[in-house]
Amino acid sequence: MAPGPTHMKWWGWGDEQAEFDISDKPELWPFIRDSVGITGEATRTPAVSFDDISLPPPRTNPAFRAAINTALGGERLSTTKRERLVHAYGKSFRDLWRIRRGIVDAAPDGVIYPENEAEVATLVAAAGDHDVVLIPFGAGSNIAGCVEPAHDESRMVVVLDLRRMDRVLEIDAVSGTARIQAGVMGPHMEQQLNAQGFTLGHFPDSFLFSTLGGWIATRSAGMQSDRYGKIEDMVVALRMVTPRGTIETRTVPRSSNGIDVKHLCIGSEGTLGVITEAIMQVHRIPEVRLPYGYLFPDFEDGVHAIRACVEADCIPTVTRLNDPAKTALSFAYKSAAPPLKALLGKVVKNYLKRVKHFDFSRSALMLNVFEGDRHTCPELHRRVSEIYRRHGGFALGTEPGRSFERGKYDFPYLRDWVMDRNMMADVSETATVWSNLLPLYHSTLSAIETAVRRTGVKPYVGCHVSHAYRTGASLYFTFGCLQQADRGLEQYLYIKKAAEDSFLAGGATLSHHHAVGTEHLPWITEDISPAGVTAVRALKEGLDPRSIMNPGKILPSERPLEAWGLAEPVVSAFDRGGSAG
Amino acid sequence: MAPGPTHMKWWGWGDEQAEFDISDKPELWPFIRDSVGITGEATRTPAVSFDDISLPPPRTNPAFRAAINTALGGERLSTTKRERLVHAYGKSFRDLWRIRRGIVDAAPDGVIYPENEAEVATLVAAAGDHDVVLIPFGAGSNIAGCVEPAHDESRMVVVLDLRRMDRVLEIDAVSGTARIQAGVMGPHMEQQLNAQGFTLGHFPDSFLFSTLGGWIATRSAGMQSDRYGKIEDMVVALRMVTPRGTIETRTVPRSSNGIDVKHLCIGSEGTLGVITEAIMQVHRIPEVRLPYGYLFPDFEDGVHAIRACVEADCIPTVTRLNDPAKTALSFAYKSAAPPLKALLGKVVKNYLKRVKHFDFSRSALMLNVFEGDRHTCPELHRRVSEIYRRHGGFALGTEPGRSFERGKYDFPYLRDWVMDRNMMADVSETATVWSNLLPLYHSTLSAIETAVRRTGVKPYVGCHVSHAYRTGASLYFTFGCLQQADRGLEQYLYIKKAAEDSFLAGGATLSHHHAVGTEHLPWITEDISPAGVTAVRALKEGLDPRSIMNPGKILPSERPLEAWGLAEPVVSAFDRGGSAG
Repeated sequence: MAPGPTHMKWWGWGDEQAEFDISDKPELWPFIRDSVGITGEATRTPAVSFDDISLPPPRTNPAFRAAINTALGGERLSTTKRERLVHAYGKSFRDLWRIRRGIVDAAPDGVIYPENEAEVATLVAAAGDHDVVLIPFGAGSNIAGCVEPAHDESRMVVVLDLRRMDRVLEIDAVSGTARIQAGVMGPHMEQQLNAQGFTLGHFPDSFLFSTLGGWIATRSAGMQSDRYGKIEDMVVALRMVTPRGTIETRTVPRSSNGIDVKHLCIGSEGTLGVITEAIMQVHRIPEVRLPYGYLFPDFEDGVHAIRACVEADCIPTVTRLNDPAKTALSFAYKSAAPPLKALLGKVVKNYLKRVKHFDFSRSALMLNVFEGDRHTCPELHRRVSEIYRRHGGFALGTEPGRSFERGKYDFPYLRDWVMDRNMMADVSETATVWSNLLPLYHSTLSAIETAVRRTGVKPYVGCHVSHAYRTGASLYFTFGCLQQADRGLEQYLYIKKAAEDSFLAGGATLSHHHAVGTEHLPWITEDISPAGVTAVRALKEGLDPRSIMNPGKILPSERPLEAWGLAEPVVSAFDRGGSAG
Repeated sequence: MAPGPTHMKWWGWGDEQAEFDISDKPELWPFIRDSVGITGEATRTPAVSFDDISLPPPRTNPAFRAAINTALGGERLSTTKRERLVHAYGKSFRDLWRIRRGIVDAAPDGVIYPENEAEVATLVAAAGDHDVVLIPFGAGSNIAGCVEPAHDESRMVVVLDLRRMDRVLEIDAVSGTARIQAGVMGPHMEQQLNAQGFTLGHFPDSFLFSTLGGWIATRSAGMQSDRYGKIEDMVVALRMVTPRGTIETRTVPRSSNGIDVKHLCIGSEGTLGVITEAIMQVHRIPEVRLPYGYLFPDFEDGVHAIRACVEADCIPTVTRLNDPAKTALSFAYKSAAPPLKALLGKVVKNYLKRVKHFDFSRSALMLNVFEGDRHTCPELHRRVSEIYRRHGGFALGTEPGRSFERGKYDFPYLRDWVMDRNMMADVSETATVWSNLLPLYHSTLSAIETAVRRTGVKPYVGCHVSHAYRTGASLYFTFGCLQQADRGLEQYLYIKKAAEDSFLAGGATLSHHHAVGTEHLPWITEDISPAGVTAVRALKEGLDPRSIMNPGKILPSERPLEAWGLAEPVVSAFDRGGSAG
């Protein structure tokens, strides 16, 4: 068997050999330490070693194995401990918390790397014939529990790792479309598109370790969504192999052909079938790309400035507004500046403080990228700057934007780094309409802070806005704190629950772009309504009557909160501000 | 019982008292006559009279009637001949051809006008309890057979006419959203929105006689779609009452909450439930609105010019490019000009012919509307004009645009007028990617012309492009000819089939914005693939297990072409260029 694609380290983010080094960021550790209330050295909490992990004994299905080996030729099922382990989880905090402790209760029993759609169809048919569960797998960076096998599964569970289906098959330069295989990873796809002058324009935080199929299956959003849309806005057509046949939609810009079947596949998270390829809308690589930064007196001003740009149809490719806590983290994340730059920084800071009366504990950093040609890009930059200026924004030049571009994929590494030091750090994100954005921001900030405090530790909670639409925007919360000894996971779930409860109570959605998986199941019924769940269940039963496709995702169990890992007595105990009884 | 809303004339388009008068269009009749090859007077073929129509005997269901009267109070079921007749059909050519001859084989048995969602829910529950079929009904202008009762239905069939649910309930001016009841008609909705400074920006050709719920249920498109999107792009959230409960989606700009339940409701054509209200994205009424016209040397140049504008992100609110045949019809449709204007017209014509070497038999009229504020609108106009100029477009000033604005809702009246004179006139539309637009244009034009000629008469076939997207555009064909005595409907179906066959063979879709209904059922499986049909069927069975909601639409029967009215021997006979054996 040819070797599979390389995998991320099983205990964290990035390639196995990748080391995350903060030695060039002198202000980062002091900032973190103060934020979460560490005095002295951090307690080191490394992951267990590979050898210390024991996986559950594999379930086997010799008839399935024989059938697929006959049909596909050769031994295609990989059952090594390493293959099983790297495909057991995604990269959510919950996943990492468990795997770092060697807790792997539900690893898959084998992994197959199909080479093409015909092989996928053969595998789905064989799985149906032999009652084997299949889990479609991109690069495993999902953070909502989308790829973890169900714990109560008695059938053999096989992961289909799609990453050998990694080619841009054709580009229609006139129409601006590209036919792309679902298993291609972000950088490899952009490389193939760029070679012909195009870009997809989809750059999620997971870009380096995620695939087109994964993006479509989870309704992903990239940091350039303001210009290029969310992934569902870019899919022109797709193909999905289901147990009841292959859904194929036509390559047309719009249609009125009844219910839009494409939208039944997008966001289906592997529960209906395997997305094998898609026709994506692509764009000529812009001539000019200009990163830029601004500082606003406060978060509210920044939000109003973004909305004003949307209303004026004057929209940068990237708009990311950090709230004060996130702004402070951004500044702490800066590499040490050479003396002249540091001096200049001090001059600007003094000017803002003394002349413009900025209160730095309240100010908000806005990061943008402007794109276009030599005429339109400067004009857009001018118009946006003018709108920002009217809302109190102060132009910081290109350096903050460049600094953002350098560090934009770093957060998951930082999460591993703090997890090595007995802290937790995670995110929860949502979207809401403009009129509700600031109320929801304040109520959720307060809800998360309260929840962290109730677990007995000091909270760091920040937020940014990074996806703006005509009717509203996303809110992306980041929180961190010290882990309670031996109760870190329940503590985390309690805090995460506070965020999600706040989203739903505040009229927002359970996630703007992280998917449902298993981790957001406690909120799915409230989000899409019981009849909405009935509709999704009908699709599941119709297309996958034996429930062989990634069961346990999207559709909630009877008691989803308990299934997620949080029992009512634990919630009550934390609510009282103490430890569980 | 309070009187229901007024209805269109049962035998054609528009209010009962509306008369369509062409006496101010001196060139129209000569143009039509020459186009379809009439010599002398047209044969008059008026509709039968109301009294000459007999409806099938009504099916009754006393238990249902008693249940709803008890639940809603008073007698709510209207069973008069007039109510049954005006709700029997939409306004497709096939509908009008039949009703004008008194052929009504499957009228509904009664009509109810619910006042609110609670009443709709009561009615859907009662229909489930008593096995009554419900057909949600907007204003009845659909032209794909979406509202006609199934011919083989043995259960009582009741139309829910939603038009008493006609209010804009609230506007969120900050977010640019409006909560609107599904039964509101276009003009009444715009009037309510305009009063608060907003517009939906959705103006389909049927605008005067269609409803929000109808637009959503059929994935409608309006003539301003280039700026405001198709209806599915405008729906932020919606509510749909199904036999398994009410689907309710959240008012958020985007989400990653699994399969997007909103998109299961959009385009469902009443087969899953009744859309009762929606949160729609609305827009401030633009400060400036500028209609404008251009003439291109040929259709191809015009298409390239539209694509260049899309690529340059330089997009008028309305862009409508007529091919030569449609251009000739547009000029023939002009009202008689006063002498000076006529003289000026002649001067321009001479200049184009002698100086610019325009061949008027090939030239293509482009009609635009530009919108924006006092700064952006002229700038957009300037940039578009510059792109058009580079593609050979000649600016005609504001008059052609104004003339288009005056006549933009007239076509269905003209169709009635020609049907009164033994002609047929109808439309077929699709969408495809840019690289395929001109090949599909030529092949479909030729397919329709050939089909008409095979039925023994002279064809008029024209086309326009009126919805452009980044990856492609729509093609909207209009065809007309003399009707074959006694075989007019089969002749029509044969021609329509040629258009649809050409769309599907050419990689396009069965409709860009007219829905599936019953008339496009022969092509649905090819369009969305057999597994796509399986998915839609799964939804139908899951949400409407007793199939009480508008059965027979979207999902094809075993032999959809025959069900539509076209038997294979008829097709073969026409194919041979003769009449059927």
